[in-house]
Amino acid sequence: MIIGLDMMGGDYAPLEAVKGIALYLSSSNNQATIVLIGQQEKINPLLEEYKIPKDKIQVVHAAEVIDMHEHPTKALKEKKQSSISIGFYQLATGKMDAFISAGNTGAMLVGALFSIKALEGVIRPTISTIIPKVNGKTGLLLDVGLNADCKPEQLNQFATMGTVYAQTILGIENPRTALMNVGEEEGKGNILAQAAYPMLKENKHIHFTGNIEGRDVLMDKADVMVCDGFTGNIVLKMAESIYEISKQRNISDEYFNRFNFENYGGTPVLGVAKPVIIGHGISGATAFMNMILLAQKMLEKDVMNKMSANLAS
Amino acid sequence: MIIGLDMMGGDYAPLEAVKGIALYLSSSNNQATIVLIGQQEKINPLLEEYKIPKDKIQVVHAAEVIDMHEHPTKALKEKKQSSISIGFYQLATGKMDAFISAGNTGAMLVGALFSIKALEGVIRPTISTIIPKVNGKTGLLLDVGLNADCKPEQLNQFATMGTVYAQTILGIENPRTALMNVGEEEGKGNILAQAAYPMLKENKHIHFTGNIEGRDVLMDKADVMVCDGFTGNIVLKMAESIYEISKQRNISDEYFNRFNFENYGGTPVLGVAKPVIIGHGISGATAFMNMILLAQKMLEKDVMNKMSANLAS
Repeated sequence: MIIGLDMMGGDYAPLEAVKGIALYLSSSNNQATIVLIGQQEKINPLLEEYKIPKDKIQVVHAAEVIDMHEHPTKALKEKKQSSISIGFYQLATGKMDAFISAGNTGAMLVGALFSIKALEGVIRPTISTIIPKVNGKTGLLLDVGLNADCKPEQLNQFATMGTVYAQTILGIENPRTALMNVGEEEGKGNILAQAAYPMLKENKHIHFTGNIEGRDVLMDKADVMVCDGFTGNIVLKMAESIYEISKQRNISDEYFNRFNFENYGGTPVLGVAKPVIIGHGISGATAFMNMILLAQKMLEKDVMNKMSANLAS
Repeated sequence: MIIGLDMMGGDYAPLEAVKGIALYLSSSNNQATIVLIGQQEKINPLLEEYKIPKDKIQVVHAAEVIDMHEHPTKALKEKKQSSISIGFYQLATGKMDAFISAGNTGAMLVGALFSIKALEGVIRPTISTIIPKVNGKTGLLLDVGLNADCKPEQLNQFATMGTVYAQTILGIENPRTALMNVGEEEGKGNILAQAAYPMLKENKHIHFTGNIEGRDVLMDKADVMVCDGFTGNIVLKMAESIYEISKQRNISDEYFNRFNFENYGGTPVLGVAKPVIIGHGISGATAFMNMILLAQKMLEKDVMNKMSANLAS
């Protein structure tokens, strides 16, 4: 199992990535070889300093870096020697099984969409987010921004993929899957939600529990919550702001602290053939470790093939 | 100035409505005659009990009540003697200048859309909500559910109407109006947002400040925030749930307490010829007083005609 890590991505690159690798390698559960992609001259001294064992890693030199604010497609086209470009090349050519970066999100998305294949039958890949539930549980919301406009068939695919992810990665045996909507009854909503509802009802790979409303997002009413990426992105960013506000106002609450998305590692792109995980720019060592562990778990649990099987039948 | 009040609407009808009238009449700012619409036999004893002066009010008997969970159009058709039906009839025939109810929201919306006229040029009326900002200010979000699917022209009208409302009612001199979106740059978003942006930029009746994201809703980044009713409804209900959660978790924070929407009175329907205000089902005396004061202010400030003028030119 070979997991590639962009060492140049994120606000604290490459230091926090190196520290994250050290944490991962010292965990009892480290099963993968890590491919470190980035500027050797910056990485190597840190590998010495943090005493990273050489047999567990490979370093692949990447002379260039795509900055956080560069235009994704332009940067990928012009910076062929960037860590993200090289990462996707390695992934596409089978030299790695998964790729992780906390760098330019747009470039990661464009790379995931165009460098590697989508799973057979997937209309468009999707990105999801963990949503902390007030009773301590954890839900999954998708799409959160990759698909601003959706067809109902896409929402139905998000439900199938989200269900597999919730089962295999979040450990929810029979996840309740619901449609984000403006009312509980069937027939409510915009044209998209109205058209998606009957498809979700017929989807035999999910346990569809109907519509949920904005007030239910943080409550334990559904495990997998599907919506178009416009709605999901606004919900996610609003949830993130709740944490910001609670910090600003010196509220120390265990629940609101769970909205510190820095801790979660990253967001996998679902619906592509291999795990691609996009980290927060402010990812620290723990986030990097968690992203490597997530990629490893996705490979161990064969998440992509399970999604593929359920999407096909 | 004659303001009609549905005495049978809301969870604590008619008691809290009567108490709200008492509060209004004891305020220094009471300028209107209140028309109380509802079951006389229930209202009259309370008017005695709360010593409501007879010269300030009129009682209009309504034998029937539309319950909170009745189907709006069906109920309005079948219950012609209900307080909501009679209220809209009085409003449409010029016997009242404004109508307020904390009853069946759907019936109030259907009534507002079909009993009274939309302002000239308005594609569809809209409902908004107050959004408390973390720095103490107050924003306006619209649409919050009346128009699940919107055309870009509607979003542009929401901006115009929201700007007038923010100026005249919220007292914000030059409100910053922004488009809810998934990114800050022009060109971001779903098809609707992409099409609305250039219209908003050209709109001479607003001070357009560009896109805002989900993280900005609670921050003081824009005063008037426009979006389709699907998105807005989910944002509003999520904001309401923040208050619920802060109560559940025994967090007593001045800011989160401002999300107790019970205190705000009600939501006016914008884009119709006369003020129609829809209250929360759990409205108490203060909310009823606030709704009467809001209707009075909307009439005093001639909000509808100002909107009409800006929409026309």
